[in-house]
Amino acid sequence: MNTLLLEAHNGVLHITLNRPECRNAMSLEMVNELRAVLAQLDSQVRAVVISGAGGHFCAGADVKDLAGAGGQLQALNRAFGTLLQEVQALAQVVIVVLQGAVLGGGFGLACVSDIAIAAGQAQFGLPETRLGLLPAQIAPFVVKRIGLTHTRRLALTAARFDGVEAGRLGVVHFVEHDSQALAQRVDEVLGQVLQCAPGANARTKALLLASLDEPLETVLDRGAQWFAEAVRSEEGVEGTQAFVQKRKPSWSR
Amino acid sequence: MNTLLLEAHNGVLHITLNRPECRNAMSLEMVNELRAVLAQLDSQVRAVVISGAGGHFCAGADVKDLAGAGGQLQALNRAFGTLLQEVQALAQVVIVVLQGAVLGGGFGLACVSDIAIAAGQAQFGLPETRLGLLPAQIAPFVVKRIGLTHTRRLALTAARFDGVEAGRLGVVHFVEHDSQALAQRVDEVLGQVLQCAPGANARTKALLLASLDEPLETVLDRGAQWFAEAVRSEEGVEGTQAFVQKRKPSWSR
Amino acid sequence: MNTLLLEAHNGVLHITLNRPECRNAMSLEMVNELRAVLAQLDSQVRAVVISGAGGHFCAGADVKDLAGAGGQLQALNRAFGTLLQEVQALAQVVIVVLQGAVLGGGFGLACVSDIAIAAGQAQFGLPETRLGLLPAQIAPFVVKRIGLTHTRRLALTAARFDGVEAGRLGVVHFVEHDSQALAQRVDEVLGQVLQCAPGANARTKALLLASLDEPLETVLDRGAQWFAEAVRSEEGVEGTQAFVQKRKPSWSR
Repeated sequence: MNTLLLEAHNGVLHITLNRPECRNAMSLEMVNELRAVLAQLDSQVRAVVISGAGGHFCAGADVKDLAGAGGQLQALNRAFGTLLQEVQALAQVVIVVLQGAVLGGGFGLACVSDIAIAAGQAQFGLPETRLGLLPAQIAPFVVKRIGLTHTRRLALTAARFDGVEAGRLGVVHFVEHDSQALAQRVDEVLGQVLQCAPGANARTKALLLASLDEPLETVLDRGAQWFAEAVRSEEGVEGTQAFVQKRKPSWSR
Repeated sequence: MNTLLLEAHNGVLHITLNRPECRNAMSLEMVNELRAVLAQLDSQVRAVVISGAGGHFCAGADVKDLAGAGGQLQALNRAFGTLLQEVQALAQVVIVVLQGAVLGGGFGLACVSDIAIAAGQAQFGLPETRLGLLPAQIAPFVVKRIGLTHTRRLALTAARFDGVEAGRLGVVHFVEHDSQALAQRVDEVLGQVLQCAPGANARTKALLLASLDEPLETVLDRGAQWFAEAVRSEEGVEGTQAFVQKRKPSWSR
Repeated sequence: MNTLLLEAHNGVLHITLNRPECRNAMSLEMVNELRAVLAQLDSQVRAVVISGAGGHFCAGADVKDLAGAGGQLQALNRAFGTLLQEVQALAQVVIVVLQGAVLGGGFGLACVSDIAIAAGQAQFGLPETRLGLLPAQIAPFVVKRIGLTHTRRLALTAARFDGVEAGRLGVVHFVEHDSQALAQRVDEVLGQVLQCAPGANARTKALLLASLDEPLETVLDRGAQWFAEAVRSEEGVEGTQAFVQKRKPSWSR
């Protein structure tokens, strides 16, 4: 991997966006490497933590790629949307750690996480229309994240805002005021995630995402079938026995 | 009724979930009794207030039912989703009063209320995946209540949170700090509801729910027809006359 | 124009609802004049600022029109919904300045703005069902603005609330505590909007609105096409050159 650092530990894959010389701008190579890594995850990996090297998360698309793309521009842009769709649909729990620049595509990536933890001083924004460009693959995910009302202001003013405001707008779940608090929050959240059964979490996440796109009736029907399967599954048997026996279930770390 | 206390008074039906020995866990019998009560409401009832006996709202599904369900597990789970669909669609205004445990199915029931009033110390959560199970009939209603962004964190970490946090997340409309304040808020909200025309409220609620599922154009067309009908209805004539004559309309309590 | 004051200045059209004798109640004539003005906007206009004369924004529908409408009642009501659909879909950035009464139809109009700036003392509410009527063309836009959860309480209790609460509920983006602060915020927001490329903003807004109604895949595909077109467009070339040359682009005011 040229653009990513990977470290797997205790069921968690830590991915560091690693182009600190350009605030981890999302090059085509980085998009491809991220997609390749995520496509190969197996069920041993229960959570993915994405952060950036050098004090920034991701400053957006790499402008150099735009200049060199020629006739591939549309496909290149669409590929970033595909990456966001794939992260959104990941069976694993996705945690993002947001510091420094969280702009454009970096903001989009934050919006498909399950749990987002930001530094109060992080800088968010959708600067595209100030350059005559569109946050085309990003804005739809921002709408899903925080709704139309806030997104329209952010996208049509290109306003910058900090982590505290990101918390207020619902972009992120936690706002922390220094690196130590940020690291502690990641540990705390991972601790919670690793007490949940991985199979149950994966199916729950699938139901949540389905409930945005499918009729309620369909989702509830599938949910009831999956619920019955879960009760009879290895996880369900172990989980309810552990509960009765007041011990931790086998998956708990 | 074995699991519910019912008290009708001044156009309001008060339902108390009454299994205090198990924090009002939602047994199959309770689901069936609730569905039977709600199916028989007539237009004399303008609001339904749901609370729990013994300092708790509802601690979730009754685990004993799961063990004994055998081949009926899927149907039993789905029936709880049907209850939530029926409460959501009720013509009456539904108010929930949330104290103590508001977990799993109890949290789901809170999410289909029109107005939710919580004690600051109430305990909310979706503990299912810690047991290897899924909040299968609940999570879709949580998504409708507070959106995907907050729901995914809550469901995939099984985190507990209190009434103050429930207010911040948008699960509940009011957070009160003692029983007296809770009771006062219920009275205040009921006072507002009983100043609104029951027929107009029922059709307004139907339009709100339709606007989630149907194209805007369809909802606005139906709305215009219902608006014209309302102006000419007994309620509309009485309401506009009362307004001009600066008196309370006949339905106002 | 009998009901509106219009002033165009520096790419911005300022529309003042001008029936101060009845707190700018939305008469049929005002609906028609607004629709006519908005239908004739050309691309020279980049933003529209809507405010009310005499210290109020808009107190809702004009009750006199209801009385005189006869068989036209349904069409008259629907026309207001059409106005809201047209404002929602406007290519320009729509800013509303909310003081005094923001009731019924006035509340609905606020809900289709891109950026809403309210006085802390402004009075919001959906009083319809207290009169035996329905907020039929309004409530679906309130649901789109702030979600079902808050809308159901507001519509079914007819509760009044102030600008501070409107900020908390997400109806408005900014809450200001006097007229001077309100005017400064309008200037600040307009300054941001006028740094964004008008064509890019119009297409971004179209993508945001489409993402509510169309499948994600479709929106992302169209977005990629529009992104590639934007990079090659006059705006895109000027914007990226200006960025590299560290100067303001031609459209920046």
